[in-house]
Amino acid sequence: MDVGEEIYEIVKKIFPINRSITGGGVRETLQILHEYLPELKVYEVPTGTRVFDWTVPQEWNCEEAYIEDEEHNRILDFQTNNLSIVNYSIPIDKWVTLAELKELIYTQPDQPELIPYVTSYYNRRYGFCMSENQKSELKEGNYHIVINSSLKDGSLSYGEYVIKGECKEEIFISTYICHPSMANDNCSGIAVAVKLAELLGKQQNRYTYRFIFVPETIGAITYLSRHLEYMQKHVIAGFNLSCVGDNLSYSYVPTRKGGTLADRVIDNILTYHTSGYTRYSYLDRGSDERQYNAPGIDLPVCCFCRSKFHVFPEYHTSADNLTFVSKEGLQGSFDILRMCFAVIEMNDLYVCTTLCEPQLGKRNLYPKVGQKGTYQSIKWYQDFLAYADGDNDLIDIGNHLRVSAYLLIDVVRVLLENKLIKVKDGKKGSF
Amino acid sequence: MDVGEEIYEIVKKIFPINRSITGGGVRETLQILHEYLPELKVYEVPTGTRVFDWTVPQEWNCEEAYIEDEEHNRILDFQTNNLSIVNYSIPIDKWVTLAELKELIYTQPDQPELIPYVTSYYNRRYGFCMSENQKSELKEGNYHIVINSSLKDGSLSYGEYVIKGECKEEIFISTYICHPSMANDNCSGIAVAVKLAELLGKQQNRYTYRFIFVPETIGAITYLSRHLEYMQKHVIAGFNLSCVGDNLSYSYVPTRKGGTLADRVIDNILTYHTSGYTRYSYLDRGSDERQYNAPGIDLPVCCFCRSKFHVFPEYHTSADNLTFVSKEGLQGSFDILRMCFAVIEMNDLYVCTTLCEPQLGKRNLYPKVGQKGTYQSIKWYQDFLAYADGDNDLIDIGNHLRVSAYLLIDVVRVLLENKLIKVKDGKKGSF
Amino acid sequence: MDVGEEIYEIVKKIFPINRSITGGGVRETLQILHEYLPELKVYEVPTGTRVFDWTVPQEWNCEEAYIEDEEHNRILDFQTNNLSIVNYSIPIDKWVTLAELKELIYTQPDQPELIPYVTSYYNRRYGFCMSENQKSELKEGNYHIVINSSLKDGSLSYGEYVIKGECKEEIFISTYICHPSMANDNCSGIAVAVKLAELLGKQQNRYTYRFIFVPETIGAITYLSRHLEYMQKHVIAGFNLSCVGDNLSYSYVPTRKGGTLADRVIDNILTYHTSGYTRYSYLDRGSDERQYNAPGIDLPVCCFCRSKFHVFPEYHTSADNLTFVSKEGLQGSFDILRMCFAVIEMNDLYVCTTLCEPQLGKRNLYPKVGQKGTYQSIKWYQDFLAYADGDNDLIDIGNHLRVSAYLLIDVVRVLLENKLIKVKDGKKGSF
Repeated sequence: MDVGEEIYEIVKKIFPINRSITGGGVRETLQILHEYLPELKVYEVPTGTRVFDWTVPQEWNCEEAYIEDEEHNRILDFQTNNLSIVNYSIPIDKWVTLAELKELIYTQPDQPELIPYVTSYYNRRYGFCMSENQKSELKEGNYHIVINSSLKDGSLSYGEYVIKGECKEEIFISTYICHPSMANDNCSGIAVAVKLAELLGKQQNRYTYRFIFVPETIGAITYLSRHLEYMQKHVIAGFNLSCVGDNLSYSYVPTRKGGTLADRVIDNILTYHTSGYTRYSYLDRGSDERQYNAPGIDLPVCCFCRSKFHVFPEYHTSADNLTFVSKEGLQGSFDILRMCFAVIEMNDLYVCTTLCEPQLGKRNLYPKVGQKGTYQSIKWYQDFLAYADGDNDLIDIGNHLRVSAYLLIDVVRVLLENKLIKVKDGKKGSF
Repeated sequence: MDVGEEIYEIVKKIFPINRSITGGGVRETLQILHEYLPELKVYEVPTGTRVFDWTVPQEWNCEEAYIEDEEHNRILDFQTNNLSIVNYSIPIDKWVTLAELKELIYTQPDQPELIPYVTSYYNRRYGFCMSENQKSELKEGNYHIVINSSLKDGSLSYGEYVIKGECKEEIFISTYICHPSMANDNCSGIAVAVKLAELLGKQQNRYTYRFIFVPETIGAITYLSRHLEYMQKHVIAGFNLSCVGDNLSYSYVPTRKGGTLADRVIDNILTYHTSGYTRYSYLDRGSDERQYNAPGIDLPVCCFCRSKFHVFPEYHTSADNLTFVSKEGLQGSFDILRMCFAVIEMNDLYVCTTLCEPQLGKRNLYPKVGQKGTYQSIKWYQDFLAYADGDNDLIDIGNHLRVSAYLLIDVVRVLLENKLIKVKDGKKGSF
Repeated sequence: MDVGEEIYEIVKKIFPINRSITGGGVRETLQILHEYLPELKVYEVPTGTRVFDWTVPQEWNCEEAYIEDEEHNRILDFQTNNLSIVNYSIPIDKWVTLAELKELIYTQPDQPELIPYVTSYYNRRYGFCMSENQKSELKEGNYHIVINSSLKDGSLSYGEYVIKGECKEEIFISTYICHPSMANDNCSGIAVAVKLAELLGKQQNRYTYRFIFVPETIGAITYLSRHLEYMQKHVIAGFNLSCVGDNLSYSYVPTRKGGTLADRVIDNILTYHTSGYTRYSYLDRGSDERQYNAPGIDLPVCCFCRSKFHVFPEYHTSADNLTFVSKEGLQGSFDILRMCFAVIEMNDLYVCTTLCEPQLGKRNLYPKVGQKGTYQSIKWYQDFLAYADGDNDLIDIGNHLRVSAYLLIDVVRVLLENKLIKVKDGKKGSF
């Protein structure tokens, strides 16, 4: 089974669970992740905890929810599709007329066959979601509406998995676990993160890798409120994973000011390992990169996506299901991020050790006979050396050479072995 | 009567006057402006005064000028069109042959129906201007040519109108009053400046506004020679108004190095409030921005135009008349500058007061239910906050958000009221 | 005879000589240059001398070389075309079968009619070069192969010609003398350099001009190893001349980081004196600019070409002969470089001496009568003055005015004579 298939299996496993920003669904999801990442730690933050401008809300759980007609036919059942009620609905159990019922129903009129995903976390209300088609066919009569939910003091749950490296500088990976049954948004992000964590956990790394699995917005804010100072000191690059499972495109949302190590590495890798990608504006942000890049937070965290949230038509509807994502799509995301990490691990400033070009021939790195057309094989060596001036790091040199920095890792190794370059102390900019 | 009509009325009133860089026409024009701006001050600078590399010339006035044929038919009369003689012509009264007359006549051969505008301020000569068509139809015979003008020691006149603001920093508006009967060049500039001054005079302003009405080149140089040090200390943005009355296009000439507050605000406003405009090169300058941007002067003054001088075919001919300008054209210029001033008044550095995004919901600035498509209404709040990092001023944020900074003024007010942003001390750069 | 013809005559004279990185052909070539430049100095660097990472190799000479068939027909003769053997071939004299012979023959299969240029400086071997067509028609039988060459301790030769200027700052011109009979690569570079040196030697120059004629790579490295510190202190701009004799295009390879005086002047001159040119990437380098721009060397040296090495099909084959270059092509290169030098000589920071625009009229630099269309003649004066702020040098002003800096030299002279500008002490950036 290749990695793409393994990731898809995780997506399938966590897809059915009813998640929200708090409650049993989040805990159940984290429990499954624990099977893959035994050292995953789960934290609980009590209702009422102040986190910057926000307050951790009451915990929401929902046992069952349905609508029945007068003949007790269930015309809507939360067990069948957990998008069927407004997420965070308060409990209700009463009979309503058709007119009253229609006031409680949310649809997506421009996509009449789909059930929309609707939330109301901070305003106490209840409601049902169904397709516009179903709504328009509802018959006159009375309906029994039941939402057997609870909103009680409890806690907000999140998971954290840290892989210690040789140094304290960190690569930060964030993904969100609050969306119910939607495959791309965001079972895909969770599953890709798990497999990346598994991979990194098995190898020796220079940098520390920190993965967090949090409810979107309130969870990221909660996490930041607890770790901001440490993160500002140690995080050198970060990636928020959102909608990374379809096979339609690649994209990322840059950091607010751009130009961080995270922006630079993902730009290089996407440029040379995809047939095209979209570099969005920071105006197009929408997931937890909003918090990581907020003024005063200013962490170097991009948002990586295949097709970006808000952009693909299946977004936030029942069409974002297990057929919309694919093992190829998931594998593609996994590979891009794996290569980004590999580049970051080697992303030093390099400086050549000779004045003028070195004589590659005496090191068997040069063609024995000079004729036009015979030099291409050693061009990467020569070009790498030409830019190894102590001001350029691996990504810079990749960009100068118009080639993937990942593919230059072998060049670096050969040149280091031959003592033709050395690592210069320090890093580009602040790191 | 709307503002456009009021401006057009001023244009009509001052159009017939024979203006030059000195003399009674300038004074008469300033007298009319005084009716609108009772606190307008008029200054007189004596002939012979040294102003930087220049000297204030003798004052020129012209009572009458004409050409008559042998039958006393007036074939040209200064009373009919004051473009008919070379501006600053010395007096003459003699009979000439047709051949001699032709040597004294200026035409615009590529526009054979129009009378050109010709000047000779610093070389004593006389001449007549007529259409190429008229010249080519002149009959053999003798002609009586008369220019009853005077060139005497006197003074150069200019007007100044200052509206004190809460602080000493100034917005500087310059326009020129030396051109005879041409509507766009520059009755339009004078009239728009008058109505802007009237508007600003009625309201409380943060900044001081200084309007000057000067003869082009020699007047601007004279003014600078008297006020340079003060202006370099206090002027934060300035606009020279030239040819602002037609309805064909919008344009501006940037400052020599670009990037000043004046460039930035007019670029933002023209981008988002017109259907297209021309940002000229500083090489295309031609009016008093030449002096304000000269090395060593270096004031942040752009030149704002509808169709730029030298560009529209009617330029410097008898076709630049009252039908070429319109109340819509004048109103458009008025509105662009009014919005520029409003933006400058609010153009502080803003900084958000919370870490991470604030919870807009508890301030009633967020939709109660979350579903795709419902967030647009609050996007400007979120985006403004995302860039309110203390490094961006209102114009920067408008540019980041790709929206008029003028339209963000209400956003600023709401966010300030909700204490979600505050003004950061200081300004961007030195301005 | 115009300069183009004179340069072509030099190309013709040195074309037949068998050159290599060492040996008699180099000395013979330098001897011819000495006829044009009597003060040319020739230096000899002994075999075995360590030069940075390299070692000066043994000296190579070749008396004769040929292949004969069993009937003593010479099917290949070094005297006919010195590309016929692998340059630096060790001696051989033996009979081989056709199969054995074919192993020793280099051809250019994609250009079957041409003899390729092949070298093996640092790996002891021997070989023959012929057209693919000739090789494929070789008949069965035995062949007598003879290379009467020698590889002995000796020396590497190079020439240097210095024209002292008023100051010690230097313009550095490098070209290479190691290629055998190829006209564009690089008899052209040698010949153009000679005529430029001759021209500069006849006139008074502000800057010192240093011309070097070196074997490529090893010669440039040798020269740098002896003069690096002095050059880093004094060279303000340099040009490597390679393939400057065809008439197909203009191009240059910029310095590694770009933006040096050399880049700036050649960019301006090529922009305004050619109908188009190619600004290559530093990735496209290939001649001694590789050494001059290596990290730690960092001299401001571009490579100037007509059609660049590697790009034209005749490159490194027998088709790069006396018909491929032309006097027009050579003259074009000569003129571009001559203009570059003239601009550098005048490339000061200029600052105007008046506040506001000066009154050009009283200096007879302004039209006597002002009418639209009459100002073009003085626009260069006004525009030069507008940018003469002490921050812009002649090249900057040319670029601002979108005109050749060379054509502005007369404007500079007039403005200096009229004391409207003066030279500001110091230079842009580090020089």
